[in-house]
Amino acid sequence: MLALTILGNNSAIPAWDRNPTAHILQSLDECYLIDCGEGTQIQMTRYKIRRSKINHIFISHLHGDHYFGLIGLLTSMSLLSRTQDLHLHAPAALEQIIKLQFTVADVKLSYQLFFHPITEDGIIVNDSKIIVESFKVKHRIECWGFLFREKKNPRKIDSARVRLYEIPKSFYEQLQKGEDYVTKKGTIIPNEEVTIEGIKPKSYAYCADTIYDETLVEKIKSVDLLYHETTYLKALHLRAAERFHSTTVQAASIAKKGGVKKLLIGHFSSKYEILDEFLAEASEVFENTELALQGVSYRI
Amino acid sequence: MLALTILGNNSAIPAWDRNPTAHILQSLDECYLIDCGEGTQIQMTRYKIRRSKINHIFISHLHGDHYFGLIGLLTSMSLLSRTQDLHLHAPAALEQIIKLQFTVADVKLSYQLFFHPITEDGIIVNDSKIIVESFKVKHRIECWGFLFREKKNPRKIDSARVRLYEIPKSFYEQLQKGEDYVTKKGTIIPNEEVTIEGIKPKSYAYCADTIYDETLVEKIKSVDLLYHETTYLKALHLRAAERFHSTTVQAASIAKKGGVKKLLIGHFSSKYEILDEFLAEASEVFENTELALQGVSYRI
Repeated sequence: MLALTILGNNSAIPAWDRNPTAHILQSLDECYLIDCGEGTQIQMTRYKIRRSKINHIFISHLHGDHYFGLIGLLTSMSLLSRTQDLHLHAPAALEQIIKLQFTVADVKLSYQLFFHPITEDGIIVNDSKIIVESFKVKHRIECWGFLFREKKNPRKIDSARVRLYEIPKSFYEQLQKGEDYVTKKGTIIPNEEVTIEGIKPKSYAYCADTIYDETLVEKIKSVDLLYHETTYLKALHLRAAERFHSTTVQAASIAKKGGVKKLLIGHFSSKYEILDEFLAEASEVFENTELALQGVSYRI
Repeated sequence: MLALTILGNNSAIPAWDRNPTAHILQSLDECYLIDCGEGTQIQMTRYKIRRSKINHIFISHLHGDHYFGLIGLLTSMSLLSRTQDLHLHAPAALEQIIKLQFTVADVKLSYQLFFHPITEDGIIVNDSKIIVESFKVKHRIECWGFLFREKKNPRKIDSARVRLYEIPKSFYEQLQKGEDYVTKKGTIIPNEEVTIEGIKPKSYAYCADTIYDETLVEKIKSVDLLYHETTYLKALHLRAAERFHSTTVQAASIAKKGGVKKLLIGHFSSKYEILDEFLAEASEVFENTELALQGVSYRI
C-alpha cells in the first residue's frame, strides 16, 4: 500500500498559496521525499510529515523550484540531532552546492549523508519492499523521473485452514513467502491450500518536468498512479514546447497511451489562479485524472 | 520616516508558524531587505511586499536561517523579468554559492546583480536619503550588524510666510535645503523666517546574531529602533553564551546602556511556543520593548 501527499504543486514562482514541487510517498515502512522546493520543510510541519521519517530524498533536476528547500531541510535534520543515515539521490552537481553551504556555515552534520549521483536509467534503491528506478526525461537541463514499485506483498494466511492442518505458528512467515508445509508424516500441504494472495503491489511514476515525450509511455506503462506535470493549459502548447514543459492534454495523452490506472497533474504555472480548467482539459482525454492539491494524500 | 516589517522571527528551525529571519525596512523611497531566511519570498507575498520594490539586500551572515531564501528570491525576480539593478551586500563567500547555483540551472538573470562583499565596519550604502553602515558583531562565524540612518530631511516651507515675502515657487527647493532668499532689491530673507525644521531623521540598528557584547553599545547609541536578537530566556544564559546568542535580559541591557528609544526582540528559539516571557523579561530591564511579530509593521 502506498500513499502520496502533495506538499507543493506550483511551478517556478510560489503564488496563490501554492508552493513549489515536493511529494511525499509513504509505504508502511518508508517515507520518500521527491523533490524539495523552497518551503518544503515548512509544508512538512503543516501537514504533519515528520522529518525523521525520511531516509531517502530524490531530486529530479537542479532548477530551483525543485531543490531550493533541500539545504534548509538537511540543516534542520542536523539541528534536531538526527542520527540515522540519509540517502540523497540527485544530479551530481548538487553535491558541491550542499558541501559549499555547509563549509561556509561551519556545519558538521549530526548524521551521515550519503550522496548518490544519478547517472543513468536503472535501479537506484532496492529496499526490502520497494524498488526505485530513475529514468531520463527531456527538460532544459539534465532531469530524471522516478518509478517506485512495491515488491510482491506477503501472502495472507487463511486462519481457519492453517488450524485445520495444524500448522505451527513458527511456520507462518514461510507460508507468507509462499512455501509449502510438510507435515511430520511427510504429507505436503500446498501453500495455496492455506494462504490467499497478498495485496497487489502498487506502483507510482513521477515524471518531473518534461516536454511532451512519447518515449515516456514505455517507462510508465500500467502504473497505478502517474504524476505528470501540466505547467500550461492546452492553448499554450507552443510555449510549453519552447520551455520543455507539458500541457494538460499532453499529460493525459501519455497517461492514456501508457494505460495507467490514474493520473495526477501539477506544477501549475503562476499565471493561473483557478485550476478548474486543468482538470477539465485533462479529464476529457483521460478520465481518471485528479489535480495534485497541497496537503491532500492520494491513496495508491 | 521609516517603517520596519517583520517577515520572520524564529531562529534556526522554522516552527510554530514562525519563519526564519527577514526584515523589510521601508522609507518613502526605498525598501531594504535585511536577511532572507527560507520562505522569505512567500512571506513577502503574504504581507504584500512587492519583490520589485527592493533594490538592496543585506545578509548578516551565512547561517542558513539568514540566507537560504535568497537564491529563490533572486531567481523569482528574474522569472518576473526584473530589469533594474539589484545590490547584494553580504559576506564574500555568498557570491560563489549563488554563482554555482545559477550555473548548474543554466540561469541568465534578467537584471544586473551587483555583489558587494562586506569586509569592514563602515558605510556600505550612501543613498540620497539614507546611509547604511555595517558593523561587526560577535557570532560563531563572520557576522555583520547594520545601521540605517536617514539623512537630514528637507525643511518645511511655511506657506503663509513665503507668500508674505513673495518668494517664487521656483526657489522652494532651495528653501527646503536651507538656503536664504535674496530679493531683487538685494534684501536677504533668512531661511528660518520662511521655513520650519523638517522631520527629525530616524535610525534603525539591526544587530543580527550576537553574543552579549557591550562593545555594541557605542555602535547603536541613541537609535530610534534597535533590533537585538533574544534566542533564549534569561535562564538559559549559559547556553546562549555557548552558542554565541543572547537572552532577553542581555538584549535589554544593550538597549538601556545605548539609550535607544525602542527595542525590538526576535530570533526566538523553536524551544518556545509562547513568547510572553520574552516580553516580560526584557521589559523589566528596558521598558519600551516589543516582540518582533510576523506581518507587523513597526513605525520608526
